[in-house]
Amino acid sequence: MVEAVHCKGFSASGLAAGIKKNKGRDLALIYSEVPASVAGMFTRNRVAAAPVLLSKERVAGGVARAIVANAGNANCCTGLRGLEHARAMTADVASRLKLDDVQVLVASTGVIGAPLPIEKVAAALPDLVAGLRPDGFEDAARAIMTTDTVPKLVVRRGEIDGRAFSILAVAKGAGMIRPDMATMLCFICTDADIPADLLKQMLAPAVDRSLNRITIDGDTSTNDTVLLMANGMSGVEIRSDPQRRIFQELLDDMLLDIARRLVKDGEGVTKVVDVQVKGAASDADALRMADCVAHSPLVKTAFFGEDANWGRIMGALGRAGAALSPDRVDIYFDKVQMVAAGVGCGQAREDEVTAVMKRPEFTITIDLHLGAGQASIITCDFSIDYVKINADYRS
Amino acid sequence: MVEAVHCKGFSASGLAAGIKKNKGRDLALIYSEVPASVAGMFTRNRVAAAPVLLSKERVAGGVARAIVANAGNANCCTGLRGLEHARAMTADVASRLKLDDVQVLVASTGVIGAPLPIEKVAAALPDLVAGLRPDGFEDAARAIMTTDTVPKLVVRRGEIDGRAFSILAVAKGAGMIRPDMATMLCFICTDADIPADLLKQMLAPAVDRSLNRITIDGDTSTNDTVLLMANGMSGVEIRSDPQRRIFQELLDDMLLDIARRLVKDGEGVTKVVDVQVKGAASDADALRMADCVAHSPLVKTAFFGEDANWGRIMGALGRAGAALSPDRVDIYFDKVQMVAAGVGCGQAREDEVTAVMKRPEFTITIDLHLGAGQASIITCDFSIDYVKINADYRS
Repeated sequence: MVEAVHCKGFSASGLAAGIKKNKGRDLALIYSEVPASVAGMFTRNRVAAAPVLLSKERVAGGVARAIVANAGNANCCTGLRGLEHARAMTADVASRLKLDDVQVLVASTGVIGAPLPIEKVAAALPDLVAGLRPDGFEDAARAIMTTDTVPKLVVRRGEIDGRAFSILAVAKGAGMIRPDMATMLCFICTDADIPADLLKQMLAPAVDRSLNRITIDGDTSTNDTVLLMANGMSGVEIRSDPQRRIFQELLDDMLLDIARRLVKDGEGVTKVVDVQVKGAASDADALRMADCVAHSPLVKTAFFGEDANWGRIMGALGRAGAALSPDRVDIYFDKVQMVAAGVGCGQAREDEVTAVMKRPEFTITIDLHLGAGQASIITCDFSIDYVKINADYRS
Repeated sequence: MVEAVHCKGFSASGLAAGIKKNKGRDLALIYSEVPASVAGMFTRNRVAAAPVLLSKERVAGGVARAIVANAGNANCCTGLRGLEHARAMTADVASRLKLDDVQVLVASTGVIGAPLPIEKVAAALPDLVAGLRPDGFEDAARAIMTTDTVPKLVVRRGEIDGRAFSILAVAKGAGMIRPDMATMLCFICTDADIPADLLKQMLAPAVDRSLNRITIDGDTSTNDTVLLMANGMSGVEIRSDPQRRIFQELLDDMLLDIARRLVKDGEGVTKVVDVQVKGAASDADALRMADCVAHSPLVKTAFFGEDANWGRIMGALGRAGAALSPDRVDIYFDKVQMVAAGVGCGQAREDEVTAVMKRPEFTITIDLHLGAGQASIITCDFSIDYVKINADYRS
């Protein structure tokens, strides 16, 4: 029994408009029957794509009806023409669905710097609008994939005062992923009734704890966009603190699930590794160190090689620019201790660690024994396939 | 006619002590007939190897007679025993050459965290000392190689007031290379007569302009050591400003040459790329941006794929955290302009850029048109072989 994937009052569609070279689905639409309150988080990259600039401006209004998104072209570094194209996409959707332009949001992902083939988008829009269906979210999830190998579609059900509500999200990731901002594309719909300002207050911490704590290659995208629309069609109101807690918990859990799926399906990834730092002088120090370990090419290639080369982790800790007493550091791979007080625990232990590293997912716990600071980041290995995928990305 | 590689009053040797798995040369010795003044620069990684701690302390004395170095083992994260081993290496050399312990410096490079096989070092030292020869520097250069494929041995001749002097250096690089400190091992000898404090004043800027401006993988080593010994045997005194300028120029030129050789022979490198940023709001901003472009895995894999994917360069500039107006950015690949005012110059130009990228070395010039700040970094591509080398490094 597969649970039906839908969210009251929302419909979606996705089809192939011919933007992607591989002829796959590349144009997605999400639509709410009634005006929804909306919150968004966007890339902090100073080279922001045209759709980011436009959607950011429109999200500030707090109300949205639809999101149109394409893969295969980022519509970034495309100058004024890029902005015109982004506007044209939303205007076309608005006129077909009889909405105000400003209530249509837009996102793009793919190659940077190539002009968006707007005529292909225009030609496909009638079918895209006609194809809207309550169970169309899997098509939409497929249509925003770039180098992703599986669509990311996640749903959560909650209940407040005996009434049910849903949260549903589609997302894409795979490359240009780094934890210091709203990462990748992620569109979230809920049929709960939540005012826009409250929506924003709940989205930011949920993203900070999940999508902002993952890394694949450390490159911040120019197109990162997270949108959350709430249309209230379930009749469930979120206002009081207890109601907020229930919603926040579901949202947090869902975004953490999506974050992990994004890393798992990262470009060339064979290992998903949780890097947990504790005992740091401060949370900020812990995050700096987790970040340094999670991004080190030498650590990540050792993951790929299933090589218990813990010295590289020590090296990465040492260059993080945070307080460190090397002779206090303990390091564990899952439950196996590899380093005690800064020194290796010997060959027998290393053999146990090598066995841990053969697992597709494992956790590295680093205890600095300096204070109470802690942080964690989900990272992955650096594989031959990552290089292959990115050396040939546009060909 | 190969120019003789020697430096008056210095001799060197290198042999296989059995530390490296591949049975190659792995133990090196450099010796000065007379006390030499000395200056050093060391890793800023807080996890510093035992030989770094010991040599740093001894260099502060300003006088040295010998450097003993091994490859195949970093003697790092080895606790108190590591320090004892580093001391034992220098004591053994000192007693055989009838020197004070404190005048012998030590450096190690290789795997982190494994105990140094000190008995192999001890067994090889008699032959190492007996093998000292004025033309032994190539053997020494080979004996400090790790994943380097060619030895780095560079010599420069200068003349002051009609008298000749030499500067000679051996170096190793290949992995764990990042520009924010004295990178890799580099031992420099000169027969000029230079007081230790002056030596230090000249070494720091030379390293900052060369060895601190290269990157291979962005991982700062725990063992980086640059040592410069001056024994005065040529009779050429360096004291006055004009004398200093002549020596500084030779030293700068030599270290820049070494820096480029290190990148060229970096792990898996197929492309050497100069990233030059100009027109930045400040030199610091320019360096931050050059650093971000030079380290981006997406930019580096595109180099490997010879793909003119300039959008990734824009993306890296945007996340550098420095002042940027995307619509002012110009980007050149050698002399071919690919981006004008933030927008691509079209397919025909891209074909020209692809031709440039087929060269083994090229320059990317980024003009931000904001101010007078500039900086450059020498980087390389990120290849399949880099991953292979580092996934299997210890096996």
